[in-house]
Amino acid sequence: MSKIDLDEFHLDPRIAADSDEICDLTLCQARLHHDARYPWLLLIPRRAGVSELFDLAPSDRAVLAEEIAAAGQVLKDVTRCDKINVGTLGNVVSQLHVHVTARFEDDPAWPRAAWGYGQPHQYDQAARDALLQVLRNRLRSA
Amino acid sequence: MSKIDLDEFHLDPRIAADSDEICDLTLCQARLHHDARYPWLLLIPRRAGVSELFDLAPSDRAVLAEEIAAAGQVLKDVTRCDKINVGTLGNVVSQLHVHVTARFEDDPAWPRAAWGYGQPHQYDQAARDALLQVLRNRLRSA
Repeated sequence: MSKIDLDEFHLDPRIAADSDEICDLTLCQARLHHDARYPWLLLIPRRAGVSELFDLAPSDRAVLAEEIAAAGQVLKDVTRCDKINVGTLGNVVSQLHVHVTARFEDDPAWPRAAWGYGQPHQYDQAARDALLQVLRNRLRSA
Repeated sequence: MSKIDLDEFHLDPRIAADSDEICDLTLCQARLHHDARYPWLLLIPRRAGVSELFDLAPSDRAVLAEEIAAAGQVLKDVTRCDKINVGTLGNVVSQLHVHVTARFEDDPAWPRAAWGYGQPHQYDQAARDALLQVLRNRLRSA
């Protein structure tokens, strides 16, 4: 008998490699994407086998909507950005993940979508650690 | 005394010019974007003065999440696409509008975001009318 639990959540290794864990929310794992051009959160519902929003249970989708809103509000407050962009594509990595991205009128991709635009810039490690800590504190109390 | 109702919903004229009305859902007006490269729905919450997802009341956000999911499922069923992409940017038109876009592995922008990519292709009018009718029937019964 197989010991594999098909319902167990595993983070896609490409998402893990391109981002740092911030904290777990009720449904999602919140992560900071490795791209210093835009403060950029990823929300990954901790559910197995989910690719499309319509694959989620409605009760999970309601929680996800609130976590997206909270993440956007925190990111706006912390960065004082001009606009929050939210997207879920999954054309490369099929595991459902939602981008919540702070946009500025003078950022490299403005006004186009930032996702997949150009090459990421690496964070200075101290700056990234400081941002992770601020976001962790804010998201946990959101 | 002003007769202007600040709470009244008005569709942004740029959205109106670039899309055709499909139908009203409980919260959103559903529209078909004028770009034959990708079957592409717009969902616009019929609320005034809303730009960010976190500007919506939580009860509206829960309805929006269900309407996004239903629109994605309908679009997937109708087009048999490879992936549904969902995004809300608002960097040009600030009125909250959600893109629900059918993506194909051989479409022009794949795997990048289709929003703002290249120049739209106009629909043949008969094809557009037929698609509008199919989407209207399906969304109303979703």
